[in-house]
Amino acid sequence: MSSCSSCIMGNAIFITGPTAGLAPGNTKANLVILPKDLAYDFFLFCQRNPKPCPLIEVTNIGSPIPNLTAPSADLRFDLPKYRIYKKGVLVEEVINIDAYWKEDMVAFLIGCGFTFENSLIENGLVIRHIEENRNVPMYITNIPCQPEGVFQGNLVVSMRPFAGADVVRAVEVTSRFPAVHGSPVHIGNPEEIGIQNLATPDFGDSVTVKEGELPVFWACGVTPQAVAMSSKPDIMITHAPGHMFITDMKESNYSIL
Amino acid sequence: MSSCSSCIMGNAIFITGPTAGLAPGNTKANLVILPKDLAYDFFLFCQRNPKPCPLIEVTNIGSPIPNLTAPSADLRFDLPKYRIYKKGVLVEEVINIDAYWKEDMVAFLIGCGFTFENSLIENGLVIRHIEENRNVPMYITNIPCQPEGVFQGNLVVSMRPFAGADVVRAVEVTSRFPAVHGSPVHIGNPEEIGIQNLATPDFGDSVTVKEGELPVFWACGVTPQAVAMSSKPDIMITHAPGHMFITDMKESNYSIL
Repeated sequence: MSSCSSCIMGNAIFITGPTAGLAPGNTKANLVILPKDLAYDFFLFCQRNPKPCPLIEVTNIGSPIPNLTAPSADLRFDLPKYRIYKKGVLVEEVINIDAYWKEDMVAFLIGCGFTFENSLIENGLVIRHIEENRNVPMYITNIPCQPEGVFQGNLVVSMRPFAGADVVRAVEVTSRFPAVHGSPVHIGNPEEIGIQNLATPDFGDSVTVKEGELPVFWACGVTPQAVAMSSKPDIMITHAPGHMFITDMKESNYSIL
Repeated sequence: MSSCSSCIMGNAIFITGPTAGLAPGNTKANLVILPKDLAYDFFLFCQRNPKPCPLIEVTNIGSPIPNLTAPSADLRFDLPKYRIYKKGVLVEEVINIDAYWKEDMVAFLIGCGFTFENSLIENGLVIRHIEENRNVPMYITNIPCQPEGVFQGNLVVSMRPFAGADVVRAVEVTSRFPAVHGSPVHIGNPEEIGIQNLATPDFGDSVTVKEGELPVFWACGVTPQAVAMSSKPDIMITHAPGHMFITDMKESNYSIL
C-alpha cells in the first residue's frame, strides 16, 4: 500500500489503497456498474458464463446498496478507488463515484479469485505469484464466451503453476467455490487455449514455472470487465485493479462442501 | 404414464405424458415463460434465490430455442404438456404453446430435484416417495425468499426422510449439485421452518417417516412458479407438473465434484 493509501476524516477511516491483505476472511468482489439499458444483457452474459462471471449480487435499479452481501455499505463510496470508462476509454480514477451515479444504474458484484486463493493457502499449497510478490499472470485465451447482445469476447484466465499431487488438490479445493470461479478451466499445454508464451501475460506479471510443474488456468474476473469495456457503453464504472469491494460475507460462505 | 401418453405422427414420436423415467441420465428442467417486461425482475429474483431457483438457462428475448442446454429443441413444442396461466389463474393445459408464444417472451429453465435424486439413488440411498410410489411431499415454509419487484413469497421445500449416516451422505451428495437445488436447507424439526404437520403437505403426497428417521428438506423448484403465479402476470406459461423439459445435458454435467 502506498503511504497515502488511507486517511482519517472525522471518525471514519478512509482506505484508498489496494485491498490485498485487508479484512482477511471477508470475500472481496469485482465491481461493474452499467446503466439499466445494458444491465439485462450484461446480467444474461454473466448467467451464461458463470465461471468467469460468478455473480455475487446484482443491486436494484438505481440502488447503490448491496442488500445481500453488505447491507450497510454504499457502493458509491465504499471502494478505495474506482475507474470511470466512457465509450470504453478510461477517463478518470476517483475515490468515490457520487458525481457519476445516476438513478438508472445497476451494480454487479462479481466473485474474485482472492477467495479461493486463501483456501488454497489454507490447504498448504504455495501460490507462486504471492511467493514472488507479483500480481497473478492473466492471459486472453482463444475460448469464446457465450455471447449476449453487445457483450462478447474471449475468456481471460489466471494461471498458477503446481506440481504433482498439488494439481489434484488445487482442483479439489477450488471446485468447492463455484461462486468464485470454481474449478480450473484447463491444465497443462497453454497453446491449446491460445496462449503462445507464458512469460508474456496480457495482464499482471509473469511468474516462474519450475521443471515438472503444470500451469493451471482458472477463469478470471477480468473477463466481464474486458467484455463490457469492448462493448463501449456510454458509461461504465468499475473498481480500480486490486481495489476491491469488501463484502460482509465470509469466504467460507461461498464454499459448498 | 397414461395409455394416451404418446402417439406417432409422421416420423416423430410425440410424448404427452409425464417424463419420469424417460431419458435416464439427462437433466430435466422446470419451465417458466414470462413476457419481457417481467423477465428482468424474475431473472433477478432467481439470481437472489439460487437454492429454490437454480437457473439452468435463460433464452434470448423472443427465442424459444435453449441454445446452451438443447440447441435442437423448441420450447414451444418439445415439452409433453404445458399450463397457461392468466393473471395467476390456470386457464388451460395444452400440448404445445404455438398459439400463445409472442415475440417478447423469455423462457427460464430451472433445475429440478430429479437430478440429485438419481445421484442419491446411485449412492445407495432409498428415496421414500419412490419406494412408496408417490409424489414427493412439498411444504410452504415460513422462510421468506429474497423479494424482487412483484416477485415475493415463501420458500417451498421438498422432504425426504433418512436415518443416521444416510442423512450425512444425503448432504454430501446433494452439495455437489448447486445448479439443481444443492444441499438441504433444513434437517429435523419441521416446526422451526413453519411446517405444522408432515402428514399434510401443501403439494404432492405424504410419505412414511419411520422411527429414528429425520426429515431432510430441500429448496423446491415449485417455489419460483408459486411466486410468479402469485404476482398475477397477464400471462405465464409453465410445464404441467411432472411433464418436464428434457435437456441434452447429462445430470453429471451439473455435479461439481
